Amino acid sequence: MPETRAVGQRVKRIDAPRRLTGLERFTGDLRVPGMLVARPVTSPYAHARIRKIDVGAALQVLGVARVITATDLPLWRDPATAPAKSPLASGEAVYAGQFVALVLAETDAAAQDGVAAVEVDYEPLPVVATLDAALDPNSPHIREVQQAGNDEEAAMHNADAATQELEDEPPLAPNVSTSVHFARGDIDAGFAAADAVVELTVESKTVHQGYLEPQVCLVDITPLGDLTVYTSTQAAFYCRARVAETVGLPPQRVNVVPMPVGGGFGGKFVLIEPLVAAVARAVERPVLLHYSRMDDFLAGNPAPDCRISVKLGATKSGDITALASNLVFNTGASAGAPLQIAAMLHGGYYRFPNLEIRGHEVFTNKPGAGAYRAPGAQQATFAIESAVDELARQLDLDPLEFRLHNCAVEGDLRPNGGAWPRIGLKECLEALREHPAWRERESARANGRGVGIAVGGWPGGIEPATAVCRLDSNGELTVVLGSVDLTGTNTAFAQIAAETFDMPSGHIAVTTAPTDAAPFAGGTGGSKITYTVGKAVQRAAEDALRQILAVASEALEASVDDLEMVDGAVRVRGVPGASISLKDIANRTMGFAAKNEPIYGTGSTAIQESAPGFAVHLVEVEVDEVTGVTRPVRYVAVQDVGFAINPAEVEAQIHGGVVQGLGWALYEGMEYDSEGQLLTATLMDYALPRADMAPPIETVLVEVHSEHGAYGAKGIGEPPAIPGAAAVANAIRDAVGVRMTALPMKPEAVAAALRDGSTAAAD
Amino acid sequence: MPETRAVGQRVKRIDAPRRLTGLERFTGDLRVPGMLVARPVTSPYAHARIRKIDVGAALQVLGVARVITATDLPLWRDPATAPAKSPLASGEAVYAGQFVALVLAETDAAAQDGVAAVEVDYEPLPVVATLDAALDPNSPHIREVQQAGNDEEAAMHNADAATQELEDEPPLAPNVSTSVHFARGDIDAGFAAADAVVELTVESKTVHQGYLEPQVCLVDITPLGDLTVYTSTQAAFYCRARVAETVGLPPQRVNVVPMPVGGGFGGKFVLIEPLVAAVARAVERPVLLHYSRMDDFLAGNPAPDCRISVKLGATKSGDITALASNLVFNTGASAGAPLQIAAMLHGGYYRFPNLEIRGHEVFTNKPGAGAYRAPGAQQATFAIESAVDELARQLDLDPLEFRLHNCAVEGDLRPNGGAWPRIGLKECLEALREHPAWRERESARANGRGVGIAVGGWPGGIEPATAVCRLDSNGELTVVLGSVDLTGTNTAFAQIAAETFDMPSGHIAVTTAPTDAAPFAGGTGGSKITYTVGKAVQRAAEDALRQILAVASEALEASVDDLEMVDGAVRVRGVPGASISLKDIANRTMGFAAKNEPIYGTGSTAIQESAPGFAVHLVEVEVDEVTGVTRPVRYVAVQDVGFAINPAEVEAQIHGGVVQGLGWALYEGMEYDSEGQLLTATLMDYALPRADMAPPIETVLVEVHSEHGAYGAKGIGEPPAIPGAAAVANAIRDAVGVRMTALPMKPEAVAAALRDGSTAAAD
Repeated sequence: MPETRAVGQRVKRIDAPRRLTGLERFTGDLRVPGMLVARPVTSPYAHARIRKIDVGAALQVLGVARVITATDLPLWRDPATAPAKSPLASGEAVYAGQFVALVLAETDAAAQDGVAAVEVDYEPLPVVATLDAALDPNSPHIREVQQAGNDEEAAMHNADAATQELEDEPPLAPNVSTSVHFARGDIDAGFAAADAVVELTVESKTVHQGYLEPQVCLVDITPLGDLTVYTSTQAAFYCRARVAETVGLPPQRVNVVPMPVGGGFGGKFVLIEPLVAAVARAVERPVLLHYSRMDDFLAGNPAPDCRISVKLGATKSGDITALASNLVFNTGASAGAPLQIAAMLHGGYYRFPNLEIRGHEVFTNKPGAGAYRAPGAQQATFAIESAVDELARQLDLDPLEFRLHNCAVEGDLRPNGGAWPRIGLKECLEALREHPAWRERESARANGRGVGIAVGGWPGGIEPATAVCRLDSNGELTVVLGSVDLTGTNTAFAQIAAETFDMPSGHIAVTTAPTDAAPFAGGTGGSKITYTVGKAVQRAAEDALRQILAVASEALEASVDDLEMVDGAVRVRGVPGASISLKDIANRTMGFAAKNEPIYGTGSTAIQESAPGFAVHLVEVEVDEVTGVTRPVRYVAVQDVGFAINPAEVEAQIHGGVVQGLGWALYEGMEYDSEGQLLTATLMDYALPRADMAPPIETVLVEVHSEHGAYGAKGIGEPPAIPGAAAVANAIRDAVGVRMTALPMKPEAVAAALRDGSTAAAD
Repeated sequence: MPETRAVGQRVKRIDAPRRLTGLERFTGDLRVPGMLVARPVTSPYAHARIRKIDVGAALQVLGVARVITATDLPLWRDPATAPAKSPLASGEAVYAGQFVALVLAETDAAAQDGVAAVEVDYEPLPVVATLDAALDPNSPHIREVQQAGNDEEAAMHNADAATQELEDEPPLAPNVSTSVHFARGDIDAGFAAADAVVELTVESKTVHQGYLEPQVCLVDITPLGDLTVYTSTQAAFYCRARVAETVGLPPQRVNVVPMPVGGGFGGKFVLIEPLVAAVARAVERPVLLHYSRMDDFLAGNPAPDCRISVKLGATKSGDITALASNLVFNTGASAGAPLQIAAMLHGGYYRFPNLEIRGHEVFTNKPGAGAYRAPGAQQATFAIESAVDELARQLDLDPLEFRLHNCAVEGDLRPNGGAWPRIGLKECLEALREHPAWRERESARANGRGVGIAVGGWPGGIEPATAVCRLDSNGELTVVLGSVDLTGTNTAFAQIAAETFDMPSGHIAVTTAPTDAAPFAGGTGGSKITYTVGKAVQRAAEDALRQILAVASEALEASVDDLEMVDGAVRVRGVPGASISLKDIANRTMGFAAKNEPIYGTGSTAIQESAPGFAVHLVEVEVDEVTGVTRPVRYVAVQDVGFAINPAEVEAQIHGGVVQGLGWALYEGMEYDSEGQLLTATLMDYALPRADMAPPIETVLVEVHSEHGAYGAKGIGEPPAIPGAAAVANAIRDAVGVRMTALPMKPEAVAAALRDGSTAAAD
């Protein structure tokens, strides 16, 4: 790669000043004339028929304008057509905290008073609260009335895996929504050939994405019913389509204004927007719904809890011979848990000559599962990387060398038979092998610490996108996009465009436009925005440059071939002084009676091959053998990032991912009781990692260039959030000998395992 | 032209439902959190030094937050740098009603109370109130302190005409801001060759654009000082540039949201936006300034009053031999009256072998002049068309044949020596000649009516533009633009795009985007938007179609050459059933993992040749010889429109223009007294024509296709507003024999002329 001017540089995020000073304006800060504030009445039961809702007293509260229930909204009126994932119940509440009504008032205080005055007559129904209950063929379905959308979505998932479905499959329980089955080779022969076999069953709890800004959406409405949706969404165009479909308008009459997002992590694709839009249409006034923190815990869309059983065998020489696993994911009250991708990753990091993976998603009376930064990957990785580590121990093999020996490289097969493209897993393992933290692991151990490693990978997303690069009147440029900037992507895009013009990225503005004017882009998730939109931005800038050179050619009376872009101006090669600034180009294309057309570059992509990203993490922990408190004291995150457009931002992404991984490992877990009641509905009860819980984090960027991303970039959002839990478990094992199999690994559990000593004894 | 599906059709305006039902949301309807309402303290003097402004009492008014004066705003602090056309005075008030302070309050009522409490100490200064005073070399300048911007702008105008400036020009008076001089041939010989010479001096008063919605602008501000400007502007990008320059921000930090405009007619390019932006920056809060009707009369930017002397000669055989004219325009307190264009049109409708036109713009202590639908053309046309008519009478020639004989055609020269391109003036005259209203004029006369005709033309504007045509998820399309829709242009653009896809225009949405995301377009004025942006839309649609056909070619496994777009779907020619809908194309380009790039067509124009538009009007009037009341009873408007994209809209434009012309002719005029005090500052005193004052209007569309406009379209906004006053004057002359030379021709003036009888006697 030749010398670069803008890409590859450490550039401050465009939005850093307003974010760091608290000056960003979020959706919840907006007010529009005539706006009503919505507050939910929530179900105290995890499953109950809604017999009657008495809103009389609520309507007497000064300032309360309306109380909306399912009967007021066309789609919700019939439980069979009610949107499956909607937080508003239709006929029956299917999880504790689901909304049964929304009180709309002139002020938030009045809405809260109104909520207290609504009286609901419930008839409690049987609750399916656990994986085992959900798997039981004798359990009732979690709903009295089935939903069309739910079945459809489940069918879609089944269709994916249907080709490999076995014929002697036992009949599914009523609450099994989806199954997968991948098989390869001869699984029995594989285990027979093994010198050691490890069997583990791991569990992880429901985990909340933990965004700072709860779900929030403001829908403005014109007197003719057209909608403007201001929302903290990761996916403006997807949101537009969903809202339009829900309220029965053509998408052209729904304008989604993607607002700054105060954290999303997969949890803010589309959750509340269709509901708020339907309510605004029903009351013909603008409506703001701003979740409280508790609303978000009760009626959000957290990562699903799951249980994964692994059986893994290998020979003394370190060849893995077989993997047999069973995954159960809890999708809550609506379909959509990440079973498929979890199974793919679980059986995809290594060459498994013989493999059988089965999996089920089950409904329970809990909120529907959502995506969480690398959905399914954390759980799948915790299982496989715990087993790999344990197996290396049993065979007395170096855990890093064991991984290197078996790790997948280009051409190796994933569970579904598809081959990996070029990936950087091996390069990451090799980089960690050379890292002092790994080389000097014995000295850490000598100090009583444990050292654990784990790998994690993400296939990477793709989705078509268009970008615009426009020359402005002052000779600077604006990139116009339809993609939401969650993680600093707009800053990276400014760098990509600036590189084309050989100028610092500060001369490029980046606008995320509302859907009525934006070029199309997919949702911000799946580590795909920099990879797909970035290339579109590069092409748009190149298109703008071509147009600029054509104008300059006329102005400078020189062939385009003799022109070069240097320092933001067009020069004639070898003719000192013969140059034209972008400001002059702007005048020639946008002034009154200007002779040339405006500079408006566009670029599109429809990349077909994703660029999977891999990370290898190392953590050193100290474990207090009395209290069980585990303290991570050193962290090394190695990641193949393709090419780091902005190394500072990439590292920041890695830092965030690592800390979220530590949350999964040690702190976070939504606890439900046997009646489906959430016991951890506040940040006092649900432990998010704080800054003082994070050790120093060293990052190592490996750059295995991708073929399609701008300058070789890959998506880098997901991978750093994946290996953390497994790395910590492996470090605890290394430090104190116990194999922890349930997340989060809280002090009491570690202490209990130490007292029990069973796993350690097996060592 | 082949059969068309969408263009050439009578389609309802997209915005008609919300406009006609009063549901449109205008700038004045907006509220943003923290917004302050501004109300002006206005100068009672047309010229006065501002000695002191005591805001103490105003600040005591409950709800008043700040009182802003020139000293609070960087540029205004120094009169030399204060924006010339700003309604806020700096150091001295230069017209009655100019703002000396803005009271900012939480409510409009508080702001008004605050205004009443502000005490200003003025020192009255000499007032220059009339054209003669302004032309007098001994008059003082209208300002004590000169403004840089003013001189600059004046210099620019002078530079235009400088090449033809005579060396023996007498020294200009201090208040002459601009001069023009066009000469051709031998003027004395021309008059010597004439068999008859007419000399007339006509006058017209200051005329307000009369928009329903007064000037209004809301500037929102982020804590970091970035601005969002919601405004009733005709020119979003120009507004952005002016605001950015005024507040000292790069344009990328100023986003102009062009709001629906409740009438502009040239008066809403940029007037109050830079001031409101500067105030918002000063107080760091959002600010709304919404003119009252009186504010708009006092501190708007109306069409200038003027005086034009014409001397015109012709031979018995009807050959015009010479034109000598002198134009004086009153530009008020800031430069920018339309002298140049007025002179060009005044001497441009006919072949004048010998010609001399001089003109001056003068400053007076009145608000600065603005553009008014065909700026300068009404006045210039009133003068020349009165003279032409009078000359035909003196020579006993048919006034229509006399015009036909002399009218300019392609290749004839304008006063500045430039040749007309292909124009339709002759075709319009020929069309009127065949019209019953003209053919049967004698029967109208027999009924005591007068029949008058007049021509009017407009050169047409040009400015580069880009348009976008995007395929949406539901298979419909959105056109994205930076141009403001004043007159239904967005509906015409939907038709232009729809034609490309062989579908009705209802399947095309049109978005006027804010400047941070829009493709560039010039201001909506000068009859240029349909002509320039329309072609860009056509190209964008064609670009989108190319992209669609490429995707369809892949999907249908057919060569692009074998594909056709029929009824909004792509078909394989001659293969029944082989087709793909735009909805399917959308899925293939925007679905998850879609294989094709999104459809995003763009088109740009930088048309170099304008398409001048001409109109010929006929009016029948009845004149009450006792009261002088003139009642137009029949009106025929013939206009060359190039090609009527939407005949219904074109006719509506003509209707509006005709009624405005009648306003100029008979009703409208802002009256100032000798001290520069406006006597007509309300709609009780300033007479706008009402519906019952308009006669039935017949329109005749002549279509002399333009070379560059989409489907041959030309701009059609200006021409219908031009000939009215002259046509009415000629009809009065025809009816009762008096030649009215001062606009508006109010009953008392007509009655006085009839009593006086001087002009009639000369007949």
